[in-house]
Amino acid sequence: MGNEQYVLGLDFGTDSVRALIIETTNGKEAASEVSYYPRWAKGLYCNPDKYQFRQHPLDYIESMEAAVQGALAKLPPGTGEKIIGIGVDTTGSTPCAVNGNGVPLALLEEFRENPNAMFILWKDHTSVNEAGEINQTAKTWGGIDYTKYEGGVYSSEWFWAKILHTIREDPLIRKNAYSWVEHCDWIPALLTDTQNPSLLKRSRCAAGHKAMWHQDWNGLPEEKFLTKIDPLLAGVRERLYQATFTSDVKTGELTPEWAERFGVKPGIAVAVGAFDAHMGAVGAEITEATLVKIMGTSTCDIMIASPEVIGNKLIAGICGQVDGSVIPGFIGLEAGQSAYGDVYAWFRKLLGWPLEAILPETSSLNQETAVKLRAEIESKILNRLASEAEQIDIGESSLIALDWLNGRRTPYADQTLKGAIAGITLGTTAPKLYRALVEATAFGAKAIVERFREEGVQINQVIAIGGIARKSDFVMQVTADVFNMPIKVAKSDQACALGAGMFGAVAAGAYSGVSEAQAGMSGGFDKTYLPRPESAKQYQKFYQRYLELGKALEEQLRDL
Amino acid sequence: MGNEQYVLGLDFGTDSVRALIIETTNGKEAASEVSYYPRWAKGLYCNPDKYQFRQHPLDYIESMEAAVQGALAKLPPGTGEKIIGIGVDTTGSTPCAVNGNGVPLALLEEFRENPNAMFILWKDHTSVNEAGEINQTAKTWGGIDYTKYEGGVYSSEWFWAKILHTIREDPLIRKNAYSWVEHCDWIPALLTDTQNPSLLKRSRCAAGHKAMWHQDWNGLPEEKFLTKIDPLLAGVRERLYQATFTSDVKTGELTPEWAERFGVKPGIAVAVGAFDAHMGAVGAEITEATLVKIMGTSTCDIMIASPEVIGNKLIAGICGQVDGSVIPGFIGLEAGQSAYGDVYAWFRKLLGWPLEAILPETSSLNQETAVKLRAEIESKILNRLASEAEQIDIGESSLIALDWLNGRRTPYADQTLKGAIAGITLGTTAPKLYRALVEATAFGAKAIVERFREEGVQINQVIAIGGIARKSDFVMQVTADVFNMPIKVAKSDQACALGAGMFGAVAAGAYSGVSEAQAGMSGGFDKTYLPRPESAKQYQKFYQRYLELGKALEEQLRDL
Repeated sequence: MGNEQYVLGLDFGTDSVRALIIETTNGKEAASEVSYYPRWAKGLYCNPDKYQFRQHPLDYIESMEAAVQGALAKLPPGTGEKIIGIGVDTTGSTPCAVNGNGVPLALLEEFRENPNAMFILWKDHTSVNEAGEINQTAKTWGGIDYTKYEGGVYSSEWFWAKILHTIREDPLIRKNAYSWVEHCDWIPALLTDTQNPSLLKRSRCAAGHKAMWHQDWNGLPEEKFLTKIDPLLAGVRERLYQATFTSDVKTGELTPEWAERFGVKPGIAVAVGAFDAHMGAVGAEITEATLVKIMGTSTCDIMIASPEVIGNKLIAGICGQVDGSVIPGFIGLEAGQSAYGDVYAWFRKLLGWPLEAILPETSSLNQETAVKLRAEIESKILNRLASEAEQIDIGESSLIALDWLNGRRTPYADQTLKGAIAGITLGTTAPKLYRALVEATAFGAKAIVERFREEGVQINQVIAIGGIARKSDFVMQVTADVFNMPIKVAKSDQACALGAGMFGAVAAGAYSGVSEAQAGMSGGFDKTYLPRPESAKQYQKFYQRYLELGKALEEQLRDL
Repeated sequence: MGNEQYVLGLDFGTDSVRALIIETTNGKEAASEVSYYPRWAKGLYCNPDKYQFRQHPLDYIESMEAAVQGALAKLPPGTGEKIIGIGVDTTGSTPCAVNGNGVPLALLEEFRENPNAMFILWKDHTSVNEAGEINQTAKTWGGIDYTKYEGGVYSSEWFWAKILHTIREDPLIRKNAYSWVEHCDWIPALLTDTQNPSLLKRSRCAAGHKAMWHQDWNGLPEEKFLTKIDPLLAGVRERLYQATFTSDVKTGELTPEWAERFGVKPGIAVAVGAFDAHMGAVGAEITEATLVKIMGTSTCDIMIASPEVIGNKLIAGICGQVDGSVIPGFIGLEAGQSAYGDVYAWFRKLLGWPLEAILPETSSLNQETAVKLRAEIESKILNRLASEAEQIDIGESSLIALDWLNGRRTPYADQTLKGAIAGITLGTTAPKLYRALVEATAFGAKAIVERFREEGVQINQVIAIGGIARKSDFVMQVTADVFNMPIKVAKSDQACALGAGMFGAVAAGAYSGVSEAQAGMSGGFDKTYLPRPESAKQYQKFYQRYLELGKALEEQLRDL
């Protein structure tokens, strides 16, 4: 006692940042704290109708500080002094325009309230047209197809599409954006005062999966290609980067200012950042032939393969294959669904509409009781739906749904797609619809598994982390049945932050490499969902119907 | 004052019967009363999950008596004595097995609780397979296509399919059913003691639209055809009927027993019955080239054409063309949608699920308050949806829906079809879905208009009656916009009962014919929905998308 060392994992999610303090030698989770982004929570700078989702850098700064302080406050005084390294993961692609000093434009007085000067959250789909143009040019321009290591389809959720859309939309940003950073580039740089573009260590993970960076062409796509997409992109590339770094690398040392704000020692190592899913996969003990699913509002599906296994094979329809994006020395493979938990949340909100629109105006209740009642009912909707949906036999309802309510990330990214529900009758109830939506997300997940397998990538086990994996028994059981494979759930509620902590530990020199850190710090599993043979068999049939429905509707959904 | 004469219109709807007392000379509605079917209201004998909907004959008897007494109670004593005739309309095809005396089997002690011995409500879809077999045989057996005057497609909502399904299912009914009657055959027969199959005057309307009766083949389809469908049908035909009657004909005189139960004079004329929509169309001043839409839970769409105009033309995909089914001397054309208001009611019930499932268990409220609150909120859902949906621009939501939640009646009956909603996103709200559902029902209505027009049947004006027409401004405006035609709404809230009263007046000799009764008794119009040109133009495009969606999904929806 008393001689423990700790690392700090910072996990920036969609709504909040989590700070996790972990014992370096054994991975024990000593304390954690979640802090919600205050402006985001109010819906500022967003326009969901237009799929515009922006986050203010101050949200990150303020909530990060609060989370670290909050976590440390749960531990004995002096614990902060024992933290030896910091790892950071974030959502992505979540880019932001920065000035010549690497400062996000929204931190300058002039751009304080301009959504285009803020971080463009992964799920912002305002650049659907630009993604289309990038794909078009990549397939037709006659040079290298720069999308080939990114599944062959560039998504509107990604770096270049977002940059192009923003500089087209907003001449002031075009003029003042010296360069662009990913959220996972910027946080470590901020903490180590290496924001300046000449110093900034760029994340291999973000660059490779989202910015078409690849060693084959020595970095980002060539200028000629970019200006072919739009001459407005001229000069952007040379103010970005060539080198990229894996997250076992130290990005720099924590500045005295941030050390004080956090309550830790200055000079400790901060690792290069990466995406949450990739670090989460590390935290959940990813190895070869293991699919790690990070299941939350959306999913990220991560695999690793040794370069010898994957060779020159290009895996079409996924979100990329990037050397070192998960564990250095392995090719990281990323796939995912643009909405998973969000599909259920959408349905909950739909069913909650009378409570939102009518309840406050009823004559029967005073306002305080109404607010309380609404909160109570809404908090019970999903659990109750699950318990009723569980009682419904597979196929009983005649419903088949498509899970593309937020577009389709993989297989074959297309954010212009939309969801659908077929087979509705006058006897269709809320639990039946919920079951169909859960099945749809599971079928979407299976389509990713099948895509990997079609390319010869073996999947011998499935591990799940994230809020859905931890909390939604019904969803997990349906997913296991649809996969016809067991799904192990990692014990940690915060596998991403744990993974970030592992990288912090490696960057600080506590472990010689990521696999060693995994061996020393992993938290194990506490639950396994076994497929039920009869359900699995039936779902084979309904999965085919899901595919048929998608095929029948795909073109029309794109145009709606 | 004091010398008025009255007629009584009895309108048997899906949930209730309405008695309307009308002044014979001017059509003034003196009084009316609605009485709900008590067993039906409790859900007895029904299984909505299996589309089984049955009604007990006692429900009709008890509620009819209550309705007539209730209406008369609103008028000065002695008014009953001034009633000179009765007209009756009912839903249909709503057949029932009867014994050799024409008594519905469910009125016998032995069959009192047997749903197969009751009236099989129009919307019962248990005989989907039998309808398929009838169609199959009609198209392949080498003889006359007996479906040809019924739109070329026989529906599971109709007479023969229901008979076949019932005698297959239930050997006891097979053995004890001497014959079968339609609801609209039976009520006038009951009132005039002409139930005995040898005396019973069958409705031309029911026979022609639902039982493949036609003068071309001197009655019902030949025995050989029927036994080709299933040998179980052997002998059924000869115990049914050959002659049929239009509703200007008197079926008989009111018995003393019923006169006493009602409080009217014995011996007054009771007209031959017909379906609600057909009599409603008469009540709403149907003339040639006028489409009368009866818009309620489902719709019936009625037109008339003179035999010279329609000639030998067979109008495919509708519910039949029958000489005299609406007005004697004209061919009555029937079409309709299996769900209209029912689609909105389904959505209201869906949104009300948290109130149904969770509200009663909340800790915040006592039970009495919860019941009251639920009722208040549910009663406001549709109005609030309409007022919010109205604010949404056409096409703003990316949603397109198919209205086949209860199958498709026309064009081209297929009760195995189901509804669908395409284009759902995370931004899809309840009002947007509601708007899409309203548009879908309007598109389904337009598909019927187009079917008539494709066959050269002119539609110069549209008249609407029924609950939706009277109460749902938003739905009616969208329908007018989609049609790009004005829609006039009949002033009477009870156009079907009014039409029935007109037939009662003709049967009683107060008018020389139906057109004369219309001229004397019609109630006029009090509202017209004009199409808005800009909306109409946009809906042209979205109607095409509705058709495309239907085309893409039709085969799969059938199999779900």
